[in-house]
Amino acid sequence: MTVSRRIVLAGGAVAGLGTAAAVAGCSAGGASGGRAGAASAPVAVSGPGIGTATVAFHGPRQAGVTTEPPAHAAFVSFTLARGTDRKALGRMMRLLTDDAARLTRGEPALGDTEAELAVHPAALTVTFGFGPGLYRAAGLPSPVADLPAFTVDRLQDRWCGGDLLLQICADDPLTVTHAQRMLIKDARPFGGVRWVQRGFRRSPGVHPAGFTQRNVLGQLDGTANPRDAAMETAVWNPDGGTTLVVRRIRAEIETWDLLSVSDKENAVGRRMTSGAPLSGTAEFDEPDFAKLDDTGLPLMPDFAHVTRARMTDPRFKILRRPYNYDEAPDAQGRPDSGLIFASYQADIERQYLPIQRRLAEKDLLNEWTTPIGSSVFAIPPGCAQDGWIGERVLG
Amino acid sequence: MTVSRRIVLAGGAVAGLGTAAAVAGCSAGGASGGRAGAASAPVAVSGPGIGTATVAFHGPRQAGVTTEPPAHAAFVSFTLARGTDRKALGRMMRLLTDDAARLTRGEPALGDTEAELAVHPAALTVTFGFGPGLYRAAGLPSPVADLPAFTVDRLQDRWCGGDLLLQICADDPLTVTHAQRMLIKDARPFGGVRWVQRGFRRSPGVHPAGFTQRNVLGQLDGTANPRDAAMETAVWNPDGGTTLVVRRIRAEIETWDLLSVSDKENAVGRRMTSGAPLSGTAEFDEPDFAKLDDTGLPLMPDFAHVTRARMTDPRFKILRRPYNYDEAPDAQGRPDSGLIFASYQADIERQYLPIQRRLAEKDLLNEWTTPIGSSVFAIPPGCAQDGWIGERVLG
Ligand code: HEM
Ligand code: HEM
Repeated sequence: MTVSRRIVLAGGAVAGLGTAAAVAGCSAGGASGGRAGAASAPVAVSGPGIGTATVAFHGPRQAGVTTEPPAHAAFVSFTLARGTDRKALGRMMRLLTDDAARLTRGEPALGDTEAELAVHPAALTVTFGFGPGLYRAAGLPSPVADLPAFTVDRLQDRWCGGDLLLQICADDPLTVTHAQRMLIKDARPFGGVRWVQRGFRRSPGVHPAGFTQRNVLGQLDGTANPRDAAMETAVWNPDGGTTLVVRRIRAEIETWDLLSVSDKENAVGRRMTSGAPLSGTAEFDEPDFAKLDDTGLPLMPDFAHVTRARMTDPRFKILRRPYNYDEAPDAQGRPDSGLIFASYQADIERQYLPIQRRLAEKDLLNEWTTPIGSSVFAIPPGCAQDGWIGERVLG
Repeated sequence: MTVSRRIVLAGGAVAGLGTAAAVAGCSAGGASGGRAGAASAPVAVSGPGIGTATVAFHGPRQAGVTTEPPAHAAFVSFTLARGTDRKALGRMMRLLTDDAARLTRGEPALGDTEAELAVHPAALTVTFGFGPGLYRAAGLPSPVADLPAFTVDRLQDRWCGGDLLLQICADDPLTVTHAQRMLIKDARPFGGVRWVQRGFRRSPGVHPAGFTQRNVLGQLDGTANPRDAAMETAVWNPDGGTTLVVRRIRAEIETWDLLSVSDKENAVGRRMTSGAPLSGTAEFDEPDFAKLDDTGLPLMPDFAHVTRARMTDPRFKILRRPYNYDEAPDAQGRPDSGLIFASYQADIERQYLPIQRRLAEKDLLNEWTTPIGSSVFAIPPGCAQDGWIGERVLG
C-alpha cells in the first residue's frame, strides 16, 4: 500500500462522513478490532468529526487494546486502600464502569463537575487493568505476576506496580484530562494514586490512519505489530480478556544523538527514514535474516533489536501500543524523554517474557534505552450495557 | 456565525485543499495576523494538511503572537551563562534564528540529530522573548521589568523569571518535542534551562478554527480577546515588537468543583455552557454592566472576573494566549492543573499592570486561582530572510 493511496482513503473518509463521523471498526466487540493495522479499512481520524468520534465501550472485549491508538494517553495506577475487599472492589468497578461508559459516549459522568468538558469524546477509550494486588485484596489467585528482574533494569519505585490501572486514550488532551479527573475522583475512596504517566503520539490528521508513528528516537515504531488474524491470536483469550505490560523506558537521547545514521540503523535492524529492514527496501518487507552483505555478514545484525525481538509464530507475538513521553529537561538541557512501552498479549509468560529475556540478554538498542518502570495487569473481558468490567472476577 | 456554518467552512477547506493545505493568513508579516478572531476567514486546521501546514517565520513581526494558538506549546526559559555578552548573544540568536526558520518550514535544523522528526511542522512557530537579564548581560537598558508583587501571588522560584524565552507552538506534540530539543541543544552553550512549561489546547479538528477553547476549569476562555484593528492596537508597537507576560496560575479545582454552576458563573460573569455574559444570551454579546436583576443588583456582579478585567479602549486591552497544563496529581488524587497564562500587549505598564492590579484587589475568581509563576519578556520584531531575531537590539 502506497502513501498516496492511504492519503486518498483518509481524505475520502473525511469528506464523506462530515461532522457526524463515527469511528468505523473500533468496537471492542468486533472480530478484528479494527484500526491497528496498516492495511485496515479507511476510518475517520481527521476532519470536523475528530471531536465527536466515539469508540464503543460495551462489548465482549474492552476497547483501547486493538483499537488504533489515538494521540493522547494517561496511564493511571492506583494502590488500593487497606480494607478494600472483594465487595468494595465490586462497588468501585460498577461506579468506574458507569463513568467510563458515559464519558466515552461524550456524556458527563454522574456528578460530573465539569460537564462542559465531556462533550468532545474524541475517540475516548477507558481500559481497566487489574494488578496482582487487586486479586490479593479480593482473596483470589492472580492471573498475572510482576516481571522478574532483568539486568538492564534500573527500576524506580515511583514508576512501578499498581493494583488498578486505567488506560485513558483520546485524540484530545483536554478530553483525557477531564476523564482522568472524573475517574480519579470516583476511584479515590478505594485507593490512592500510585503514578500517572502521560504520553502522546502524532495529533489526529498529522498523518492518515494506519501510518506508523515515530517515537522520540525518530524511529518508525509499530511496523511489525501483528495484524488481523495474527493480532487476534496474539492478543485475545477465549473469554475476551488479555494482559498488559507497562514499562517506562527512558531514551538515552544524549548518547543516541552521537551515533551516525547507520549506527542507529544497525542497533535496530531497520532504516531510519523508511523503516525498511536492512535486508530489504520498503517498510513492510519481511526481514531476511539469512541474507549476507559483501563481506559475508548478515544484513540484519544478530545483535539488532528486531533480530532479537522477532517471533514468527503469532502465538508468541505481542501487540505493542506505546506512547512517547517528554518531561521537562534538567538545567543542563538533557531530556527526560522515552517510551511508555505498553504491550498487550494473551499470556505474559508465554509471549512477553521470552522476548524480554532475549532482549535483556543481547540487544544493541539496550545501550540507548533504560527501563525505569514496570507493571503488569490482567485486562478482564468487556461487559454488556447492563454489566460492569470485572463482573466475572469480582461479582 | 453559527456552529454549522463554521463546520461547513472547515470541512470545505479540508476537502478542497487536500494534502497540500497551507494555513492561510498566518504570516507574521500580515497586517492582521489572521487566525485569532472568532469571525476570521476559514482556514485549514484539519484534514491531511495538519502535518504539513506551515506558518511563515520571516516578516516584520514574529509569528506565534497573533496567529491562532495551535494545540500544543512549550514555554522554555533560559538563564544565561555568566560571561554571555552582547557579542555572544548575537551568535546565539543567529544560530537559534536559523534553527527556527528551518524547523518552521518543516526542514531539519543544521546538525539535526533526529531529522526524521522535522518533516511535520504542523503550523510550528518559534517566538523569541528577551527578559530583563538579557539586556543586563548585553549592557543595554531593558524595556521590560519584573512585575511587582501582588497579594494574590504565591510565586515559586522554579516557575519565575528567565533571560531568554522560547515559545514553541505546533499542532503536534512530537513536533514541539523535537523543536524544543534542537533549540535547547543549540542554546545551551549560552545558558542553562531555567524552566519548561508544557501546555495544551484542543487537538486540531476537535472544533473548527475560531471557536473559543475551554480551559481546565471548563470555562470558555478567550471570548473577549481584541480582534482585527483592536488587536493591532493592543499588541503591536510600531517597530514590530511587543511584550509577553507568562504567569503560571494553578487552578484550585478541588474547591472549584464544590461550587454550583451559578456560583461558578457569578465568579466570572459569564455562563458556563454558552460563555454569554450574565447580562446577555450569546457568547459574543457585549456585557451590560448597568443592567439590573429583579432585586436591583447588577447582572454582571462587580466582583466578577470579567467586570474587573474589562477595558474598553483597545490601547488598554491585552491579548490572552493561554494554554492549559495538567501535571500528575498527588497521591490523594488532587490535580496539579491550571493555566499557562500568556498575554501579549504593546506595553506591560500601560496595559497589563492596571488589569492585574484591579484583579489582585478584587476578583472573586481569585478564590480558585493561584499565581505560582511569573515572568516578563520583550518580544523583539521579526526579521527578514537574511536577518536574525534581535538584530536591532544586539547587532
Ligand atoms: C524504548 C524502548 C524500545 C524502543 C525504542 C523500541 C523500538 C523498536 C523499533 C524501532 C522496532 C522496529 C519497528 C517495529 O516493528 O515497530 C521495534 C520492534 C520490536 N520491538 Fe521494540 N523497542 C523498545 C522496547 C521493546 C521492548 C521492551 C520489547 C519487548 C520486551 C520490544 C519488542 C519488540 C518487538 C516484538 C518488535 C518486532 C520485532 C519483529 O518481529 O520485527 N521492544 N522496537
Ligand atoms: C487561571 C487564571 C484565569 C482564568 C481561569 C481566567 C478566565 C477568564 C474567563 C473565563 C474569562 C471570560 C471569557 C473571555 O473573555 O475569555 C476571562 C476574561 C478576561 N480575563 Fe481572565 N482568567 C484568568 C486570569 C487572568 C489574568 C491573570 C488576567 C490579567 C491580568 C486576566 C485578564 C482577563 C481579561 C482582560 C479578560 C477579558 C475581560 C473582558 O473584556 O470581557 N485573566 N478570563
